[in-house]
Amino acid sequence: MLSSLRVVLVNTTHPGNIGGVARAMKNMGVGQLVLVQPREFPGDAAFARAAGATDILDQARVVETLDQAVAGCQLVVGASARGRHIPWPVVDPRQLAEQVAAVFANVVADVTAELPQVALVFGREDRGLTNEELHRCHRHVHIPSDPAFSSLNLAAAVQVICYELRMASLAGEKATANPQGEPEPHWGTAWDIDSASADEMERLFVHMEQVMTDIEFLNPDNPRQLMTRLRRLYMRSHLDQVEVSILRGILTATEKALKKQEGDHV
Amino acid sequence: MLSSLRVVLVNTTHPGNIGGVARAMKNMGVGQLVLVQPREFPGDAAFARAAGATDILDQARVVETLDQAVAGCQLVVGASARGRHIPWPVVDPRQLAEQVAAVFANVVADVTAELPQVALVFGREDRGLTNEELHRCHRHVHIPSDPAFSSLNLAAAVQVICYELRMASLAGEKATANPQGEPEPHWGTAWDIDSASADEMERLFVHMEQVMTDIEFLNPDNPRQLMTRLRRLYMRSHLDQVEVSILRGILTATEKALKKQEGDHV
Repeated sequence: MLSSLRVVLVNTTHPGNIGGVARAMKNMGVGQLVLVQPREFPGDAAFARAAGATDILDQARVVETLDQAVAGCQLVVGASARGRHIPWPVVDPRQLAEQVAAVFANVVADVTAELPQVALVFGREDRGLTNEELHRCHRHVHIPSDPAFSSLNLAAAVQVICYELRMASLAGEKATANPQGEPEPHWGTAWDIDSASADEMERLFVHMEQVMTDIEFLNPDNPRQLMTRLRRLYMRSHLDQVEVSILRGILTATEKALKKQEGDHV
Repeated sequence: MLSSLRVVLVNTTHPGNIGGVARAMKNMGVGQLVLVQPREFPGDAAFARAAGATDILDQARVVETLDQAVAGCQLVVGASARGRHIPWPVVDPRQLAEQVAAVFANVVADVTAELPQVALVFGREDRGLTNEELHRCHRHVHIPSDPAFSSLNLAAAVQVICYELRMASLAGEKATANPQGEPEPHWGTAWDIDSASADEMERLFVHMEQVMTDIEFLNPDNPRQLMTRLRRLYMRSHLDQVEVSILRGILTATEKALKKQEGDHV
């Protein structure tokens, strides 16, 4: 899906912004860049801001008209500020990503089908797209910025929209790779060590309660909520086996230190 | 919620990026900028790229240390590339926004409560945050970029993350109008006690390291990964203030027990 997305920049003034757009696209895995009458391209400023996304700049197509830029596209989406006087279907970047993903979901089943082409059209830094240009789009996409300061940098706008498209694409891949819906890893990242088992946790709490008593932090005649609070803390943290070993080690070291001092002086 | 978000930039090299960050923040309605030892600030390049977000630059605080930057914050989130060798809880920007919204959903009901402070910490353009800096965070946030070209421009990364936070904030406003759809609170239930602040956590770790040394569980000449693993455990657990008091109490009781036995026998 991402490789079929085409970013179209209309009449960009600053070549640095073209470079910033290329970087944002490549970060998100979006491949094709089309420039409609850029004021200055190619140039050093574009390559400097691209920070390595030079392949996207090298392969960028420069064309004369928006029509040429969006030729062959089944879906054309224009970036828009609010409040054009003729209302047009407008989506936020997340809704756009859902709609684009839906377009691709329909064709993925048929391997012989050509992938649909989608164009994301961005206007001039200072004035955006003209009404005429906006009227060539199926949809408008509006980033819900603060109305008091609503104009995003061009590369920042491309970044946000490509980010949403990438999120939708990754969600689609996960759904395909993992149709049963296996649970996500517990802390959002693969952990290097297995979680502690329930019985390991219970042995930890028995040991902890003993040491809390030894250091006179817990009064067995008036235990209050201490062990409950410690349990809640360590249970919600979902300890792994090394962490349990460390905590057990701390408890053992505390006991030893107490005994050693006794021994030193007896 | 957005006004309580603090963007912290550590050792930024290019002042233009600071301006780009200010613009991205203001577009999304995020208010506070803190700079830890920027190479050059203030300066013309920052104001040029800010494109009118000069109030954010004017009010930016410049500090010497990350500790100063995150003081008073109940949630500290570090922007991270993948693949640190000790895994830390990592979320994508959308999950982060849900978690931050949950933190605020808990306090919104109580109009007398102080709003929680949340820090979003971003590292150097070329190297990101150091491991030590990342270990001061409750969570890491990773933008799921293309692994083959993963490094976003600093302002672009701030843009994506602030965009997600704004989307969650706007969804929260809608939910307030429609209280059936409120986001889940932080641990799936309303918490009875405020979260500990970043500085309370740092004092806890200093105390812990001292006691670990006293009981000879930590060898200062060969500390290995002990404090890192303890940090990860207690940061991801998101300790509340009573829990920090309990852990400090355990450390103090351990010291006392050691001294008492010394005293008994001297």
